[in-house]
Amino acid sequence: MQKAAERSSAATLGHKEPRTERGRRTLRAILDAAAVEFGDRGFYETGITHITQRAGVAMGTFYTYFDSKEDVFRALVRDFSNKVREGAGGAISAATDQIDAERRGLDWFLHFAREHKEIYRIIDQAEFVDPEVFRYHYESTVARIRKRLEEAAGRGEVRADVGEVHAWAIGGMNVFLGLRYGVWSDDEGLSEIAKIANDMLANGLAPK
Amino acid sequence: MQKAAERSSAATLGHKEPRTERGRRTLRAILDAAAVEFGDRGFYETGITHITQRAGVAMGTFYTYFDSKEDVFRALVRDFSNKVREGAGGAISAATDQIDAERRGLDWFLHFAREHKEIYRIIDQAEFVDPEVFRYHYESTVARIRKRLEEAAGRGEVRADVGEVHAWAIGGMNVFLGLRYGVWSDDEGLSEIAKIANDMLANGLAPK
Repeated sequence: MQKAAERSSAATLGHKEPRTERGRRTLRAILDAAAVEFGDRGFYETGITHITQRAGVAMGTFYTYFDSKEDVFRALVRDFSNKVREGAGGAISAATDQIDAERRGLDWFLHFAREHKEIYRIIDQAEFVDPEVFRYHYESTVARIRKRLEEAAGRGEVRADVGEVHAWAIGGMNVFLGLRYGVWSDDEGLSEIAKIANDMLANGLAPK
Repeated sequence: MQKAAERSSAATLGHKEPRTERGRRTLRAILDAAAVEFGDRGFYETGITHITQRAGVAMGTFYTYFDSKEDVFRALVRDFSNKVREGAGGAISAATDQIDAERRGLDWFLHFAREHKEIYRIIDQAEFVDPEVFRYHYESTVARIRKRLEEAAGRGEVRADVGEVHAWAIGGMNVFLGLRYGVWSDDEGLSEIAKIANDMLANGLAPK
């Protein structure tokens, strides 16, 4: 029970919701500034003033939304989780079947990683700053993969025995391809990378 | 050229080699103590005195082998890289074919991750402490996977088109399975996890 409560707090704890459009823009500016500062300097070397100065907001405004540096860091990790969920979800919605969906999701993610090279450094820091939010990020992402796979198995699109292990394997595959070809390089065509990985997956997950 | 030089320095820079058996034991004690301290406290919160006290060595002895906290950290990441190379290499040597080799390598790694739960926290910190050694760790590990796969393709054991993308995909799969089932859990039978992942891989890599 303890564990479930912790998970849930990792999902919901954090910034206070703004009530106005202007408030939402301010919150967005703080999160974007925090992404740059934490990504460049690292969590431990970043002060709240670095974030407020980059965002162009007063210290008091920061504390309207966040209680601490840890608090804005957690909110930032959740913000990335949400972007991945929404972005991959949108990309997948046009898919013809589950294998095509996985290709589209990976294709989207590789482009996202190339555009947001700071994301890995921030997520990986979470392992120390807040292990619970680090774990929540990966567990929630992989849980979505697993759900998609199991539903596809029900439709006969992938092998009937798909489950948690396959979902973690695919999650890891996507994260490493994002690191190698998205974050570390601007050279390769990312859609071609997604196709190569997806062809391996298509055979690996084919109905038996 | 710059790049190649940096890589090579990441591989070789670091601790001075001890010349005696006693020296090797002292160096080992320092590295083991550093693994515990960096794993528990994190790099930024760890002082050299934490390491020397845990290792039971004098400060002067530490400086016989290392120039700085960064230096022992880099040596520790390389030490992990070496352990993975040697451990997985030994496990693989008894394999009947390349798919069996990948299963044995993963099986070994999952057990290693469960026994050394600090390894992920240390490697992930390297992304900030020394991005070059972080990158070297993954690039060298994946390069070995790629070499194995391409040799196996030459023998007709796996599909002829295997290459870098497949190797990164497999590396990511193994790392994520190690995190989920090795580091975060003591419950699941790891050899069974390795078999499930390997069956997906066997189909994904089957000759066409």
